[in-house]
Amino acid sequence: MKIKVVHQIMEWNEDVSDEIKKELAREKVCLINVMGSPGAGKTSLITSIINKLGDKYRFGVIEGDIAGQIDAEKMKEMGIPVVQLNTDGACHIEAMSIQHILPDFDMSELDVIFVENIGNLVCPAEFNIGEDFRIAILSVPEGDDKVCKYPLMFATTDALVLNKYDMAEYFDFDTERVINDAVDVNPDVSVFKVSSKTGDGLSELCEWLCKKIEKVMS
Amino acid sequence: MKIKVVHQIMEWNEDVSDEIKKELAREKVCLINVMGSPGAGKTSLITSIINKLGDKYRFGVIEGDIAGQIDAEKMKEMGIPVVQLNTDGACHIEAMSIQHILPDFDMSELDVIFVENIGNLVCPAEFNIGEDFRIAILSVPEGDDKVCKYPLMFATTDALVLNKYDMAEYFDFDTERVINDAVDVNPDVSVFKVSSKTGDGLSELCEWLCKKIEKVMS
Repeated sequence: MKIKVVHQIMEWNEDVSDEIKKELAREKVCLINVMGSPGAGKTSLITSIINKLGDKYRFGVIEGDIAGQIDAEKMKEMGIPVVQLNTDGACHIEAMSIQHILPDFDMSELDVIFVENIGNLVCPAEFNIGEDFRIAILSVPEGDDKVCKYPLMFATTDALVLNKYDMAEYFDFDTERVINDAVDVNPDVSVFKVSSKTGDGLSELCEWLCKKIEKVMS
Repeated sequence: MKIKVVHQIMEWNEDVSDEIKKELAREKVCLINVMGSPGAGKTSLITSIINKLGDKYRFGVIEGDIAGQIDAEKMKEMGIPVVQLNTDGACHIEAMSIQHILPDFDMSELDVIFVENIGNLVCPAEFNIGEDFRIAILSVPEGDDKVCKYPLMFATTDALVLNKYDMAEYFDFDTERVINDAVDVNPDVSVFKVSSKTGDGLSELCEWLCKKIEKVMS
C-alpha cells in the first residue's frame, strides 16, 4: 500500500512540474533547484552568485526550510524578492508548493528564480519542481564518499559544486575520487571547485550558469 | 490521503519499536540510534567510542545507508559484528528493518548495538527504532544555525555531539548559540564538544554513555 501511494503522489508531482516548466518558459524565467546537505552552503552560494550576476539578471529566491526563516531574512536584507516555504517537517519540496508560490512573484520583473531546497541529500532529488536545471552542492567537510552513498542526488544534477574548497587542506578530501564517482553515475555533470567565502571558483561557475540561463531566456 | 497513510505507517512503526525495546530489555542489550547530516562524522564517532570502550562492552553495529557498504566494511575490518541495512533510496530507518535484522546478531555475545542512521537531519528523527537513547551529531562545518532549522532532530535526542570541534577556529561557529537553541527545544539534552580525529572530548561523552549503558544492562 505504501509504495502505491507514494507512486501516485510522485506522478502527480511530475504533472505539476511539467506545468510549471511550461509556464516559466512562456515567461522566459529560469528556475534553478539548489540542493545539498544541511550546512553545505546553499544560501551562501546563492547570495554569492546573485552578488556576482546581479547587474546582469534580476533574481528571485524561494527559501525552503522545515521551519523558520533565517535564510529568507538574509535575502530580504539584500533586497532580493523572496518567499519563504516552510514544509512543517517535510524533508523535500514538491512541485505543488512551487506552483502555489509562483503567483507571489511578478514574473515580468524576474529572469531567474533560485529554489533553495531543504538541506537533505536524499529525498529532494526524487522530486522535480519545474526546474530548468539542478545544482547539487557537496561541501568538502562532508567527506569524499558522499557521491557513492547518495547516488541519486549526484546522478540527477546538472552541476556539482564542491563548496568550501578553501578548506580542502584541512580535510582528507580526495577530489579525484569524488569527480570519478560523479562522472560514473552522471557522465554529463559539470564540476566546479568553489569557495563562497573567498570567491575562488565562482567565476567558472557563473560562466556556466550564464550559458544555461541565456538558453532559457532566449 | 497522503497524511492518513503516513500516519498508519508511523503507528505501526511505534508498535514495532516497542516490541524491539522489550526484546532487547530481556536480553540486556542497549540499542543506540546515532543520527546526523551526511558527513557529520557518524561512523568515525562510533568507531572512536568502540575503540575507547571495547574492553568494557561487546559492541555490534547496524550500518544504515541508501546504497553501498563503505562504512560496514570499516566496521568489519575492526572485527565488529556488523549488518548492512540498505534502504534502497529511503531517507530513514524504520523499526521494521531493525526487527528484521536483529536475529542476525548473537544477543548473548553483545552488550551494545549502535545503529548508524541515514545521513539526514530530518526524517530519521520521526521514527523510533526501538532505541534506548539517541545521539544527534552536529559537525562544526555545518554551521551554528542547524538546531533552529531542524528542530525535531535536536528536540528528540538525548545527547548532542558537536563534532569536528577541532575545526571550530576555522569556521564562524557560535557554540553558545547552538547550546542555547538546543536547550530551548530540549531542556534535558546533554551536550558534548568532541573531535573524533584528535580524541578531545571523547572521555566526557564515553563517561555519559557508560552510565546510560549500565542502566540498560543492570
